[in-house]
Amino acid sequence: MEFILNPQIEADSEFAAKLPLSQLRLMNNAHFTWVLLVPELPNISELYELSASQQQQLLEEINRISKVLKQEFLCDKLNIAMLGNKVSQLHVHIIARRKDDICWPNPVWGGPSMAYTDKAKAEIIAKLQGLNKQ
Amino acid sequence: MEFILNPQIEADSEFAAKLPLSQLRLMNNAHFTWVLLVPELPNISELYELSASQQQQLLEEINRISKVLKQEFLCDKLNIAMLGNKVSQLHVHIIARRKDDICWPNPVWGGPSMAYTDKAKAEIIAKLQGLNKQ
Repeated sequence: MEFILNPQIEADSEFAAKLPLSQLRLMNNAHFTWVLLVPELPNISELYELSASQQQQLLEEINRISKVLKQEFLCDKLNIAMLGNKVSQLHVHIIARRKDDICWPNPVWGGPSMAYTDKAKAEIIAKLQGLNKQ
Repeated sequence: MEFILNPQIEADSEFAAKLPLSQLRLMNNAHFTWVLLVPELPNISELYELSASQQQQLLEEINRISKVLKQEFLCDKLNIAMLGNKVSQLHVHIIARRKDDICWPNPVWGGPSMAYTDKAKAEIIAKLQGLNKQ
């Protein structure tokens, strides 16, 4: 069976880079630097359904992107979450939180959303792509 | 330096079991089966600050508790999250979500809270302790 990206994830976010296991995607919400890791595997909704080696790879990708966000997109705290109540396809939220962001200290889900300009979105994606290669 | 449990976590949850790395704690909110894993390590607020072996151990504990919640506390979806905006001491939320729970399909943070009765809390903790030994 083939991996097919969930249409809601596709609508809410934009492809930034392909990691060994996952797609790195930028959520289209300019209030936060908020990315998703979506493992390109069919029919997975819970972390424990991944094999041990897939989990290990996902953990590496979470670490890699966490460090990029913490070091290159100044933030005070990372939020890392797998929820999936609305979209069951396994996806990991990694969100760079700042004490002056619009939802702090509450979670971002259900909070305000503001689309990026095309220019700002392209710049952030280029930055994520460049950092991911390092 | 010594691990000291954050007082807010201590106030909001009750000790259930000691795993190799983490304390398993039950959040005192009868609306959900909602547990925390708190690695007994000082001065850690982000996942990537753990060593590779500590991360591996935490992942094993997340898997173990995830399966217990999914299989023994009937639920439709697990929510797994490391937020830490209010309490920076690293802690992992694992929440058994049901389609008929009071917050579904939204996240639980900021939602309604209802304290367990002493009897109900003791029963759930005993169940968690028993399953953790299997």
